[in-house]
Amino acid sequence: MKPLPDFDLPAGNREVRLRRRPQGVPLRTDFELAERPLEPLPAGRLRIRNLYLSVDPVQRGWAADPAATAIGATMPSLAVGIVIESRCDDFREGDIVYGRFGWQIYCDAAPADVFSRRRDPTLPLSLYAGVLGMPGVTAYLALADLAATRPGDLVLVSTAAGAVGSVVGQLLRNAGARPIGIAGDDEKVRRCVSQFGYESAFNYKTALLADAFAAAAPEGFSLYFDSVGGPILDLAIRHMARFGRIIQCGTAATASWTPPPSGLRNEREILMRRLSWTGFVIFDHLARFDAAVTALEAMVAGGTLRHDEELLVGLAAAPGALEHLFAGANHGKLLIDITRADSAP
Amino acid sequence: MKPLPDFDLPAGNREVRLRRRPQGVPLRTDFELAERPLEPLPAGRLRIRNLYLSVDPVQRGWAADPAATAIGATMPSLAVGIVIESRCDDFREGDIVYGRFGWQIYCDAAPADVFSRRRDPTLPLSLYAGVLGMPGVTAYLALADLAATRPGDLVLVSTAAGAVGSVVGQLLRNAGARPIGIAGDDEKVRRCVSQFGYESAFNYKTALLADAFAAAAPEGFSLYFDSVGGPILDLAIRHMARFGRIIQCGTAATASWTPPPSGLRNEREILMRRLSWTGFVIFDHLARFDAAVTALEAMVAGGTLRHDEELLVGLAAAPGALEHLFAGANHGKLLIDITRADSAP
Repeated sequence: MKPLPDFDLPAGNREVRLRRRPQGVPLRTDFELAERPLEPLPAGRLRIRNLYLSVDPVQRGWAADPAATAIGATMPSLAVGIVIESRCDDFREGDIVYGRFGWQIYCDAAPADVFSRRRDPTLPLSLYAGVLGMPGVTAYLALADLAATRPGDLVLVSTAAGAVGSVVGQLLRNAGARPIGIAGDDEKVRRCVSQFGYESAFNYKTALLADAFAAAAPEGFSLYFDSVGGPILDLAIRHMARFGRIIQCGTAATASWTPPPSGLRNEREILMRRLSWTGFVIFDHLARFDAAVTALEAMVAGGTLRHDEELLVGLAAAPGALEHLFAGANHGKLLIDITRADSAP
Repeated sequence: MKPLPDFDLPAGNREVRLRRRPQGVPLRTDFELAERPLEPLPAGRLRIRNLYLSVDPVQRGWAADPAATAIGATMPSLAVGIVIESRCDDFREGDIVYGRFGWQIYCDAAPADVFSRRRDPTLPLSLYAGVLGMPGVTAYLALADLAATRPGDLVLVSTAAGAVGSVVGQLLRNAGARPIGIAGDDEKVRRCVSQFGYESAFNYKTALLADAFAAAAPEGFSLYFDSVGGPILDLAIRHMARFGRIIQCGTAATASWTPPPSGLRNEREILMRRLSWTGFVIFDHLARFDAAVTALEAMVAGGTLRHDEELLVGLAAAPGALEHLFAGANHGKLLIDITRADSAP
């Protein structure tokens, strides 16, 4: 284990800019690489050398929203970095931080952009964007707030081998529940069971899900932790137990919401099954983020929480990374390693 | 006010039987009137002379479900009646009771069929099937469990002049919230505002609801208390405030669920607006029913809770009553007055 990687300090900044507004999933051609000189750091800011850029489904929404990303602006992203200069009291050089720092080598961040700080110096830095970052904390806080599972409860989880789902499975299993996963290829299905605590898992591209759900949960699921929506959600709703809960954490199955897509009417299922269906967005809970990271650090250090990551290398890999993510082609939390900035073209 | 009406005691029972399985809304021709001799009352039962039979949307589900109503069986219903003979310790002759007694003159009920007993002898009996019965208690407990409204919150309510909605509006107004109603004709709209506490109300058959919702709640509704579902629900979801709640109490807008109908996909709204959408069925809460009636009796006696009812007369009116109800043709809680059993043909 190498807690702090080697990294260089190039003279200027390099960034990935949004070149045009994406239609649906952001494509490689929607972005461009650009250079920008470093200005003196303003008061109240901290300069961060980003080391691992995160690639997350939420960026599709940020890229689509003119209020979040202007054309020509640095693509917003989460990232892990090291403070190299600080002009605010709360941070000092050498702090390892995680937050909304953008797809770029350097970020002059405000303290409010920082979500968490590394406390355990033995853990690899990249984990702070995955199992110890937004995906892990989403799993941890969404379950803490909304799951209400009891030991033995059957829980269905979509994108079960993904950055959020892999943590959901393990947290549920550690709490005595019985997670059942849905994933997009056989290798992910195997990892759900061998690594991520799932009792069983199904490849939604090849399994007959209606039969699989009925066999896995003849009395219905107590909880559906869903990050995809779409027809699998419509089917899962019809396999929920009475008084079951649905946590809506994402809607990745639907490529475009314009024009508004249709699906099965679900209100009768909500009523007859007495379901409770709630939306969860981690950015509403940033005040609790750092405490959640501390809890998750203990689990990782104690060996009760495993993770998996896929590293792309160099800033030039960023523009195509969301295509890769939404195709489900990644295995584990998708990150871009920019510790050697010079390796970028 | 005449607390106890005159009633007669015919020698035999008369009932409304389910003649065939309804397709959608139960029609007059799905039922038949029949006579049946009275047998000696079994031990552990109480004999009730029904006085006011209730007509409720839930009966559509009971009539459709072979497990709830066999062909040839007495049509299940709620009713208010008086105990005329008791072979169980908890009840005695003269008790006024409300429960699941069926569309018939006499019911030999088990104690578990009784939902509540009249405590306040000054209030008219028919109220125990409406504002003091299932509709009133549904409004009271659903709001108590799930509304979480604060003073000033804008709340949308469908079937706002109906048996449940008329109580919902007044309870919300009395709690300082601002209820906005949806109803099916102009007379109901007027009563929402003049009698039932609504700040404003709209006729969904003539108003442009999207414009009406936007004007009534530019920042969105904090709560939607919904008994209809369908396209109005899809629209209302898109006018909810962040962290808003939806209480699903019925799905009257959809005539048939076979084949499964389609509508707008709603999971993205659940997520982006952080909504919480929950089904509520009063029959899950019967242990709290009697206490809720006591609270509502005090409001009615104190003049802070108004009601409205429409009485049909005679058992022969029952077979056509659900058609009347689902057409929205009733004004106020729909009941069948069978105090003079001889008036039935």
